[in-house]
Amino acid sequence: MYRPRLLTPGPVELHPKALEALARPQLHHRSEAARKIFLQAKAGLEAAFKTQGQVLILTGSGTAAMDALVQNLFAPGARVLVPVHGNFSERWAKIATEAGLEVVRLNLEWGRVVRPEHLESAQGPFDGLLLTHSESSTGALNDVRTLAQAFKARFPESLVVVDAITSLFVSEFELEGWGLDAAACGSQKGIMCPPGLGYAALSPRAIERLKPRGFYLNLASELKAQSSGESAWTPAINLVAATAAVLEELLPRLPEHIALKRQQNEILYATGQELSLKPVPEVKSPATTCFYLPEGVSYAQVKEAFAVRGATIIGGQGQLKGRVFRLSLMGYSDLYDAYAVAQMMREALRFG
Amino acid sequence: MYRPRLLTPGPVELHPKALEALARPQLHHRSEAARKIFLQAKAGLEAAFKTQGQVLILTGSGTAAMDALVQNLFAPGARVLVPVHGNFSERWAKIATEAGLEVVRLNLEWGRVVRPEHLESAQGPFDGLLLTHSESSTGALNDVRTLAQAFKARFPESLVVVDAITSLFVSEFELEGWGLDAAACGSQKGIMCPPGLGYAALSPRAIERLKPRGFYLNLASELKAQSSGESAWTPAINLVAATAAVLEELLPRLPEHIALKRQQNEILYATGQELSLKPVPEVKSPATTCFYLPEGVSYAQVKEAFAVRGATIIGGQGQLKGRVFRLSLMGYSDLYDAYAVAQMMREALRFG
Repeated sequence: MYRPRLLTPGPVELHPKALEALARPQLHHRSEAARKIFLQAKAGLEAAFKTQGQVLILTGSGTAAMDALVQNLFAPGARVLVPVHGNFSERWAKIATEAGLEVVRLNLEWGRVVRPEHLESAQGPFDGLLLTHSESSTGALNDVRTLAQAFKARFPESLVVVDAITSLFVSEFELEGWGLDAAACGSQKGIMCPPGLGYAALSPRAIERLKPRGFYLNLASELKAQSSGESAWTPAINLVAATAAVLEELLPRLPEHIALKRQQNEILYATGQELSLKPVPEVKSPATTCFYLPEGVSYAQVKEAFAVRGATIIGGQGQLKGRVFRLSLMGYSDLYDAYAVAQMMREALRFG
Repeated sequence: MYRPRLLTPGPVELHPKALEALARPQLHHRSEAARKIFLQAKAGLEAAFKTQGQVLILTGSGTAAMDALVQNLFAPGARVLVPVHGNFSERWAKIATEAGLEVVRLNLEWGRVVRPEHLESAQGPFDGLLLTHSESSTGALNDVRTLAQAFKARFPESLVVVDAITSLFVSEFELEGWGLDAAACGSQKGIMCPPGLGYAALSPRAIERLKPRGFYLNLASELKAQSSGESAWTPAINLVAATAAVLEELLPRLPEHIALKRQQNEILYATGQELSLKPVPEVKSPATTCFYLPEGVSYAQVKEAFAVRGATIIGGQGQLKGRVFRLSLMGYSDLYDAYAVAQMMREALRFG
């Protein structure tokens, strides 16, 4: 007998404080109580992103936050560099293309990380660089701080925008301190809430450079409304309350939480090594553990072997489809869970 | 002693089936269980909109669904007629303008409804007509069926798109049967779920005429994904489950539910008449009861008089700000609630 467990890189096992917040009676978003909660969630997110700018809470997925950042920070025709080495960095390229930007792709093998020398090979000028901090399709973690520094040394006027969807709350992150201008996250990842909110972080410099576009995803409308605890359109206020509730507990112990996520990931990779599994990423993100499938074993078999033990895992995307499997303890879990999943790997991956 | 009650036209008091669904463990959106629930919610919404086309479930507010419909049904430069007689019909005009359409406004006094003769006064040709079924800023209900017929008699090639955000589940509605091509709704209204989902209904004719635009709100990506129970981007799957759960209970008794909403509204307006309150709308929508403030009484006084009795009500928007107050029993409630609110009106509105 196994209870169902999500071992996926989002949605994840929910934080009990999120569940508690979601069980409260419905709030009206244009009320004092809601404005207080909204401002509390917003301030907490600003502390998490480490920004003196503003974090805007959007009702939508993390992709909505990415789309909003691209549309509101770059005018059509702007020239951006996009290193592509997985499904989520590919998403940046697609969003920027659809928004009418001139996209210069830097194609790398999936699983690799971006190095400053890769960026140097690209012919400028550029208005921006779109980076993926934790590329959860491959489990790779980019050193976005070093990349931003290298890029801005050449293009000081440019904006560096980061997908921090599976890195915030899971790995160290700093917006201005690392030379980044904007970043996106989502509620169903490291913050352990249900899906439905995108968080768009803007540094003071990004706020000055805003070129608002669109209606629903217009960040100027949101900036105006959210500075007083409202939002331009009806927000998923229940999820905003969940965000505030989890942040209240998580923020004071964020360094310990991030250390735990690293330890959990190390345990899973160590177990994989014992089982002769080959890791996919060149540099490991604590958000997702990604292994190539054992020789002669299909993803369907691996998925089923975890499923009969109550666990939902996830396979590969894009060019890694049918070649890898992925596990994540990004959700509400501690070392006890890492032990259980390590043992589950030993049991589940006995084939033939 | 009063328990808090939302008497607002969205968010509303939640349906117990929604709360039940939200208390379940987190689902992964790329799983069989989630796909089944997604398809169930989608089919239920298609039954509610009375369409043989498709309803797309978007993670966002009702405004996101409106924005998506305008952007994906009309190319920039298309010429649309927008009757404006309240805050939400004004929103259509703003969305269409931002999307690069040529907007011909038909300005009417707030509180009035649109008549076929108003439409006839507008000089064509037009590619579309954007209508608001229940204009909840004034409490007015438009006869969108008659308006669509009159408009299409002159412009048979045009598309008629309707904001059904506070009419679906509250008042009769038919998409193709009434000659409408597309409509928008949201989760925090007549379906009694928390905010966070927009529903975009497309008739078969609208699907054929799709001119997909944008990334996050691209309806062609959603059509492709949602026909197999997925969504292009991570959905607020918990709210999708709530939608499915409420629909299961609500759909088989929708006519009775709509009759109840009308009766509740009649009770509140009859009470207002006893109290010599002047109703705002020319034709009354069952979604919102809207009265002018009594002579010499401020909205703050009225709001407070309800607040001390546990009830959250709402004031005027735009040009009706400070001139009206609004009540709604669109949420989970029955005649018992209408009796309680009628008596509350009598107690709360005794001034001086």
